[in-house]
Amino acid sequence: MPVSCISPEGISTPETFTHVITATGGKTVFIAGQVAEDNGWLVGAGDMVAQSRQVFANIGRCLKAAGARPDQVTKLTIFVANYKRDYLPQIEAGRVSLFGDHKPTDTLVGVAALSHSDYMLEVDAIAVVEEGR
Amino acid sequence: MPVSCISPEGISTPETFTHVITATGGKTVFIAGQVAEDNGWLVGAGDMVAQSRQVFANIGRCLKAAGARPDQVTKLTIFVANYKRDYLPQIEAGRVSLFGDHKPTDTLVGVAALSHSDYMLEVDAIAVVEEGR
Amino acid sequence: MPVSCISPEGISTPETFTHVITATGGKTVFIAGQVAEDNGWLVGAGDMVAQSRQVFANIGRCLKAAGARPDQVTKLTIFVANYKRDYLPQIEAGRVSLFGDHKPTDTLVGVAALSHSDYMLEVDAIAVVEEGR
Repeated sequence: MPVSCISPEGISTPETFTHVITATGGKTVFIAGQVAEDNGWLVGAGDMVAQSRQVFANIGRCLKAAGARPDQVTKLTIFVANYKRDYLPQIEAGRVSLFGDHKPTDTLVGVAALSHSDYMLEVDAIAVVEEGR
Repeated sequence: MPVSCISPEGISTPETFTHVITATGGKTVFIAGQVAEDNGWLVGAGDMVAQSRQVFANIGRCLKAAGARPDQVTKLTIFVANYKRDYLPQIEAGRVSLFGDHKPTDTLVGVAALSHSDYMLEVDAIAVVEEGR
Repeated sequence: MPVSCISPEGISTPETFTHVITATGGKTVFIAGQVAEDNGWLVGAGDMVAQSRQVFANIGRCLKAAGARPDQVTKLTIFVANYKRDYLPQIEAGRVSLFGDHKPTDTLVGVAALSHSDYMLEVDAIAVVEEGR
């Protein structure tokens, strides 16, 4: 295969996309938009802090499955449903729970809808695995 | 040129952006957001299945112009206007028409608007061309 | 560090993300979503041309800080609040002010909200630094 498709543990395998694809010999890691599900079950209905923590936990699962570390994430795109500014620190709580002091580049926008109305945010990521630290 | 700008056949050349740019010696392929147009003409007005098939056909044209294959696509971002869940299998019909069993990572969100109100979805992509399969 | 986090001059350093991260030995440049701020102050309230020029000026600052040139940008994603078609040439004025004849791939969508209601657009970018031109 030209690229490697990976199904991380703890996230249900979707029918139409792959959660993680690595390329360039495993060095470039593409992570699909993650939502607040644990093994296919919604987590944190109506609770942005809980949803954000689950989303970033899932990104952590994806990174682990790809052999990458959180501090190798270079780009996040954060899509928020029913956006309000109060959500920003709540989303941040999730980011910090995975990344600590590492701060990837990010883009955060409010969208008209996510794929299911229970989801409050969806976050995708790119990581680059390099030698040294 | 540091990067290579490509205009695929069958897709009208826009004034403000390039449909395909390759970098790292042609190995990394960036594809602009594709809409349901064939040679500049709208395809599938009001018909999500037809629009999705055209969008993914255009991504196929972009890949071909870059010397890349569908199974080398690592990331899709799917923006949907007037999102409803009924669209999901309709969009999937288009994805399968190009990719078959290959499932890129994806992020799918409902947006407030696409650049023209006739468009029902817009999809961009990244591919990585590697040796072997 | 596996990747290099950069704070460009002229753009205030955010608490939760990094404006620029370079990877693969500085060759791949990820730029966070830029908004119309100059040293933390909003520019061009209600004026899309002014906001677009500032956004692309900030992308220029990010590129410079990464040692990259505008003609090395491969991908733009443009998120527009309260989208209307009249904005397209106004946004284009900003793009041209940075890129001139270079036309990155782009995706342009209307979103429900940007992180602050004063922002009219947010644009992120990827660049690839290669030898020669």
